[in-house]
Amino acid sequence: MGVLKRRDDAEDLHLRMRAIGEAARDAAQVLALASSEAKDTALRAAAAAIRARQAEILAANARDMAEAKDLSAALRDRLLLNDARVEGMAAGLEAVAELPDPIGTVLAEWTRPNGLKIARVRVPLGVIGIIYESRPNVTADAAGLCLKSGNAAVLRGGSESFHSSAAILTCLHEGLRAAGLPEAAVQLVPTKAREAVGIMLTMSDYIDVIIPRGGRSLIERVVAESRIPVIKHLEGICHVFVSAKADPEMARRIVFNSKMRRPGVCGAAETLLVGEGVAKTILPLIVDDLAKAGCEVRGDAATQALDARVVPATEADWDTEYLDAIISVKVVKDVDAAIAHINAHGSHHTDSIVTGDAQEAQKFLEQVDSGIVLHNASTQFADGGEFGMGAEIGISTGKLHARGPVGAEQLTSYKYVVRGSGQVRP
Amino acid sequence: MGVLKRRDDAEDLHLRMRAIGEAARDAAQVLALASSEAKDTALRAAAAAIRARQAEILAANARDMAEAKDLSAALRDRLLLNDARVEGMAAGLEAVAELPDPIGTVLAEWTRPNGLKIARVRVPLGVIGIIYESRPNVTADAAGLCLKSGNAAVLRGGSESFHSSAAILTCLHEGLRAAGLPEAAVQLVPTKAREAVGIMLTMSDYIDVIIPRGGRSLIERVVAESRIPVIKHLEGICHVFVSAKADPEMARRIVFNSKMRRPGVCGAAETLLVGEGVAKTILPLIVDDLAKAGCEVRGDAATQALDARVVPATEADWDTEYLDAIISVKVVKDVDAAIAHINAHGSHHTDSIVTGDAQEAQKFLEQVDSGIVLHNASTQFADGGEFGMGAEIGISTGKLHARGPVGAEQLTSYKYVVRGSGQVRP
Repeated sequence: MGVLKRRDDAEDLHLRMRAIGEAARDAAQVLALASSEAKDTALRAAAAAIRARQAEILAANARDMAEAKDLSAALRDRLLLNDARVEGMAAGLEAVAELPDPIGTVLAEWTRPNGLKIARVRVPLGVIGIIYESRPNVTADAAGLCLKSGNAAVLRGGSESFHSSAAILTCLHEGLRAAGLPEAAVQLVPTKAREAVGIMLTMSDYIDVIIPRGGRSLIERVVAESRIPVIKHLEGICHVFVSAKADPEMARRIVFNSKMRRPGVCGAAETLLVGEGVAKTILPLIVDDLAKAGCEVRGDAATQALDARVVPATEADWDTEYLDAIISVKVVKDVDAAIAHINAHGSHHTDSIVTGDAQEAQKFLEQVDSGIVLHNASTQFADGGEFGMGAEIGISTGKLHARGPVGAEQLTSYKYVVRGSGQVRP
Repeated sequence: MGVLKRRDDAEDLHLRMRAIGEAARDAAQVLALASSEAKDTALRAAAAAIRARQAEILAANARDMAEAKDLSAALRDRLLLNDARVEGMAAGLEAVAELPDPIGTVLAEWTRPNGLKIARVRVPLGVIGIIYESRPNVTADAAGLCLKSGNAAVLRGGSESFHSSAAILTCLHEGLRAAGLPEAAVQLVPTKAREAVGIMLTMSDYIDVIIPRGGRSLIERVVAESRIPVIKHLEGICHVFVSAKADPEMARRIVFNSKMRRPGVCGAAETLLVGEGVAKTILPLIVDDLAKAGCEVRGDAATQALDARVVPATEADWDTEYLDAIISVKVVKDVDAAIAHINAHGSHHTDSIVTGDAQEAQKFLEQVDSGIVLHNASTQFADGGEFGMGAEIGISTGKLHARGPVGAEQLTSYKYVVRGSGQVRP
């Protein structure tokens, strides 16, 4: 009986997921044609609902926290909501409402010799599936960006945040109703069953793109299993290269900020490369700055020789995203060696060069194969908000479709609209 | 011994494919930085080599044709090369050389309040894997577009065209050598083994995107097996909708051209929808035009009632790409019914409305969810050349990355180049 029952459950889950897909597909057709006003009304009304239902959301979150007693302190912190975080979600939705509507923009327009007028016009992608881990605020952030860009969203949050996400969803639905838009524009997979993710990844008839947000194992699972195109946000193994031609004070400031401002964000630097010309002048100062601030410095032999606080780096360190107050340091010959190291060990996310030499900078900016390359600036600027894009769903480390910060504009496609006067092809 | 031998062969194939991947990755780094002049020199020198080695190419093709005796006449025609087709390849490479270089273009540029200057700059994708069927000219066409856009190409042609493709590859390598570019910029998988495709689809460390060109079964296999993002060119189930407000003569001309100019291309119309207001006036003339030209007309009941030459359409007809002189015809209530039919049965490729009513046209152009939507023009304009893009590798029916004709520009990505003066993030 147990087996039969399980088979029934599996069939039931498939049917429920399919119903979600069909409702999302229908909602996407409505959203694609919705006015900017309607979408922005929904976003603002959802923000108001989040503020009005703050107590409810916090009570739901308390239930999640109580059920998540066995999680690590870091995971519990991600799961936790408080007054400021709830207000952050509301303000985030209002900020997205303020952004220009990307849909309908004419990206290019030309007339052919035969008189055909061709326009490339921005349109929504359709239905976006978002798979994320324990942070419940992703429910509001991701839904807001999908709505702004005219896409329906199917959200699959971490099972730990189940009650919090459901409470937030109630607010998003209130917003949609206030604007006369279908509630199915934002749906949450209503089960903790792990199998739901596997089913979601096969629903290519209903979901146009999958965006995973989370750790390496989640991303790898999604990429391996998905039958739907994935916009992936892999890890950020970001580098700062301090050239022999760097201004010493600028180098110290940029390295320190790149690592220590917030060591846990994906744009935090994980590896410092230093040109050998300044290994004995600037590098000791940088190591001292970091060590004094409590950062563990793992260095190659040259770096170890400078400071007793430096511990030996292993080969694995060059390929590791610490997301913590740890940095690996290597002395390299020149900018070419730095570029080679970054292209071999980096994650094509964000890398910065500090140098006073414009030619050297240009070489780095051209040859480092990463979504974001910076000259004389901190890697922690790797953020849609800092780019002026308003909000982001993550930083894409893939090259297809979207690279770097993924905001509302990156959640769109385009179509060619061709206007004729009876033309036929010879 | 047989088993061991096969296992050796399989291991050997894996090693050879990996060597191809590594060589492609290295070549891609060189190509990404190659000047426009070098790339165009390579394209023109390859064109010259194709002309100089015409006899060699035709001899290789004769060998393929001799080995392909069991193929259907249609497949043998695709495989066949002659003087004109060889010249077509050479002229095609020269036309691609004439196109503007997409690489390095600044797509957008802005300055942030903190002084950071951000530019979005076009860069190559990297390594493009192209899997195609028997047409040997794809070897030259695809390699030319990849080279122009700074990408390395790994080509896997149909086993039938093995000798023809190898002869064409020799010319492409001559071109690359003439420009001082690495021959590994264009590689052909040097085996007929079917397993090579399966291995190729897992080589995500070496190949950035897979473009399949061919029939539905090839595309479906690639989408199902690939661990690499796919730009897919699915079938073209294209529609013409003749509204009750259409000009009768224009409607006849556009329907006839959309179907009969070349019934075998992906932009050929497969289904005609006619507004009921003109089902008894314009439709009989259209059916007569088509039937007289030898086109089989499969109609719904209303169409069958008009003309004895109309055979009954079945439900399957609305979902069929004939690629032949066959058309399915349905009378629909109005533009809304036409849009609903197209979105339910089409392949999101190319669809056209014929109407004199601007509002009705606008509705169709907005609501039909296809890569190319036309007003008062033939669906056979669905072609990169007709769009002024110079050449194309196919028409993408997906929404991610590229939609519609895929030319050199669509084979690119972008990176963000950020220039600062010491900024750190607060």
